[in-house]
Amino acid sequence: MDFELQITDPKSRARTGKITTDHGEIETPIFMPVGTVGSVKGVHFNDLRNDTHAEIILGNTYHLYLRPGLKIIEKAGGLHKFNGWDRPILTDSGGFQVFSLSGNRKLKEEGAIFRSHIDGSKHLFTPENVVDTQRIIGADIIMAFDECAPGDADHKYAKNSMQLTHRWLQRGITQFDATQALYGHSQTFFPIVQGAGFRDLRKQSAEYIASFEREGNAIGGLAVGEPPEVMYEMIEVVTDILPQNKPRYLMGVGTPVNILESIALGVDMFDCVMPTRNGRNGMLFTSRGIMNMKNEKWKDDFSLLDPEGTSFVDHQYTKAYLRHLFVSKELLAAQIGSLHNLAFYLWLVKEARKHIQAGDFSEWKDNMVKQLSVRL
Amino acid sequence: MDFELQITDPKSRARTGKITTDHGEIETPIFMPVGTVGSVKGVHFNDLRNDTHAEIILGNTYHLYLRPGLKIIEKAGGLHKFNGWDRPILTDSGGFQVFSLSGNRKLKEEGAIFRSHIDGSKHLFTPENVVDTQRIIGADIIMAFDECAPGDADHKYAKNSMQLTHRWLQRGITQFDATQALYGHSQTFFPIVQGAGFRDLRKQSAEYIASFEREGNAIGGLAVGEPPEVMYEMIEVVTDILPQNKPRYLMGVGTPVNILESIALGVDMFDCVMPTRNGRNGMLFTSRGIMNMKNEKWKDDFSLLDPEGTSFVDHQYTKAYLRHLFVSKELLAAQIGSLHNLAFYLWLVKEARKHIQAGDFSEWKDNMVKQLSVRL
Ligand SMILES: [Zn+2]
Ligand SMILES: [Zn+2]
Repeated sequence: MDFELQITDPKSRARTGKITTDHGEIETPIFMPVGTVGSVKGVHFNDLRNDTHAEIILGNTYHLYLRPGLKIIEKAGGLHKFNGWDRPILTDSGGFQVFSLSGNRKLKEEGAIFRSHIDGSKHLFTPENVVDTQRIIGADIIMAFDECAPGDADHKYAKNSMQLTHRWLQRGITQFDATQALYGHSQTFFPIVQGAGFRDLRKQSAEYIASFEREGNAIGGLAVGEPPEVMYEMIEVVTDILPQNKPRYLMGVGTPVNILESIALGVDMFDCVMPTRNGRNGMLFTSRGIMNMKNEKWKDDFSLLDPEGTSFVDHQYTKAYLRHLFVSKELLAAQIGSLHNLAFYLWLVKEARKHIQAGDFSEWKDNMVKQLSVRL
Repeated sequence: MDFELQITDPKSRARTGKITTDHGEIETPIFMPVGTVGSVKGVHFNDLRNDTHAEIILGNTYHLYLRPGLKIIEKAGGLHKFNGWDRPILTDSGGFQVFSLSGNRKLKEEGAIFRSHIDGSKHLFTPENVVDTQRIIGADIIMAFDECAPGDADHKYAKNSMQLTHRWLQRGITQFDATQALYGHSQTFFPIVQGAGFRDLRKQSAEYIASFEREGNAIGGLAVGEPPEVMYEMIEVVTDILPQNKPRYLMGVGTPVNILESIALGVDMFDCVMPTRNGRNGMLFTSRGIMNMKNEKWKDDFSLLDPEGTSFVDHQYTKAYLRHLFVSKELLAAQIGSLHNLAFYLWLVKEARKHIQAGDFSEWKDNMVKQLSVRL
C-alpha cells in the first residue's frame, strides 16, 4: 500500500491524499460502506460501484469468520473472488463485534473467548489468529485486534484496556510480519489508537501506535456513547501525534456532521453502518438536512426525492412514493434509502475533497454542518 | 388499445401478437411482473425496464385503494406519475384480494363488503366503483369485478358464482362505457371468464364474455388448487371460444411450465407473484431447472449463478455467494432472487415468441418443459 499526501488545508488539519492498493486507488477523504457479511445490505455491487462511487468497502471479520466461514472463503480464493467486489477491502479485526454481539464473551490475556450469536458455538480470537483470518479473507487492509472500552469507562478501566490493546498490537504485528499474503495481492496492517475519553491515554496510545511506523493508523473506541465534543477533542489529540504522511482511519464514525468535523481534524478514512441502517429505517441524509420518510408530511409531496442528489434513486422516485413504500413496508423502500444515503456519504467526502483542493474547506464545512442538521 | 395478431403456430394454438397502448407496445406472449402497491418487490424500476425487459406491470387495486389511497394517486396524476413507471399498467379489480386477504368479507348482489387487512376499516367494492377506482389509478387495462370460486367449488356453487360474475360484468361495462379516462391516455376494459373446473360452465362463460366484443378477454379462477390437467382443459375450452383477434390474459398463472403449456393453448398474457415471491425465498427458475439456493450443495459452487441467464445478477454473483446471502438472511439475497426470476420469466416468454415465429414452438416447448422441472 502507498499513501500520497496531496493538499493540506491552511485553516484546518483537513487534507487530501491518494491511497494505492493492488485493487486500485482510493482518493481521500473517503467513506467506506459496510459490507458486514461481504454484502452491503440492500445494494447491488454494480450500483455500489457506478452509482454511489464507492472506492473501498469494509468487511466484518467476526461475521465472515462465522458465515460463510474461512474454508469457503479460502476455497473461493478470498473475499474479492467470493463476493465479486474487485476494489479494495478493509476488514476490522472482529474485536468490536465480539464485545457487542456475542454472548458469554470472556476477555483474557491470550485473547477473547466468545460464543457465536448464530449457534452459540465457542470460539477464541487472538491477536495472532485474527491476522491469519484476515489473511484468508484477503483484505487489502488488515486491522489489529483491540479492546474497545465502553464510552463511560473510568480512567483505570480505560488504561488497562489500552495497555492490553498495546500488548495485543505487538503480537499482531509480529504475526503479520511473519506471514504472507495468500492471493497474490499485497496486504497491509493498521494499528489502532485506544484510550477512551482521556487525553493522557489517547496521547500515550497515539505515540505508541505511531512508533510502529505502519503504512496507516486507526483511531478506535470513539462514537461509543461519549459526547461529540469529547470525541472531537480525542481526535485532535491523536491526529496531532499520528504521522502526517500516513492515512488515518476513524473507525465506526459517524453522522455526516461527525465526518466533516473529523476531516477538519485530519482524518482520511471513515466507515459506519449509519447510512445503510438509517436508510433502511427511512432516515435520509441530504445536503439540505435530514428527512424522516415515514413522516406524514411527505404523503403528497410529489417532488423528486433529492433534486441535488447524485444517485439515480434521487431522480427516479418522489418523496411521496418513497413514503408510501416505507409505510407499506416494501423491500424497495430499504433499497432506495440505503442507496441514497450511501451515495450521499460518498458525495459528501468527495465534496470535502474538492473544497480542500479549492482552499475553501473550512467555510464550506461550517456552512454544510449547519445545513446537515436541519430536520426537513 | 390495439391488438395485432401476428403469427399463429401451425402445430398448436400458440400465437404472437402486438398490443399497442398509449404507454407503448407490448409484444405477446408477455409476462407481467406484479407491482402490488405500485412497486415490484425488491426491484428498482430501471432494472425492471432495462434488465428484466418488462413491458407492462400489474398493480393490485385492493392494495392501492387502501394504500396510498385514491386521493394521493389522483393528486399525483395517476399511478404512472406516482411510481414513475411510464410503460403500460394493468390493474386487477380487487376481487381476488377481497376474497383472499380481507377479514369478514360478505358477498352481496351489490358487491363485496370487506374489512381492510391493514386497519380493519370497512369498505364496499362494487362492479361500478372498482371501475371508478381503476380510472383513478389510471391503468391502461382495467379488469372487471368478479368472484373467483375456490378450486374445490361444486357445480352449483361455481354456476351461481359465474352467474353473479356475469351480472357484475354487465354493470361494470355500463359504468366503464359511461365514464372517461382521467389523465389523457386511453383505458380499456377486459371481462373475465369464470366457471371453475367445469367444461359446461367455462364454455357458457366464454361465450357470454366473447359476446361483449371487448378489446381483450381474461380467464380467471384457475391455478387456485385444481390439478394442472384440469386447468389446461379449461383453458382449451375457453380459448376455443374467445375471439382469435383479441388478446387473452390468464390471471395469476403460474410456474414456467404452466406458462409454456398455456401459450400452447393460445394464451397471450400472464401475471404471477411466483417469480418474486419464490425468488425472495431462494427458489430460482432457470432454463436448466430449479435451484433452491438455501441448499447446502451450493456452498462451494463458485460458478456463475446462471451462465445462460439474461440478468446482470446471473453474471455478477456466484451460486456459493448467493447461497451465503440467503443463509445470512441478507436483503441482497431477496433482490438477486427476484431480479433473476423476473428476468427468467421475461426471457421465457420472449423465447417462446421467437420459436412461434420460427415455426418450431411445439418441439422447443416440449423439450423446455422437461428441463424446467428438473431439480438442480
Ligand atoms: Zn457508526
Ligand atoms: Zn400465481
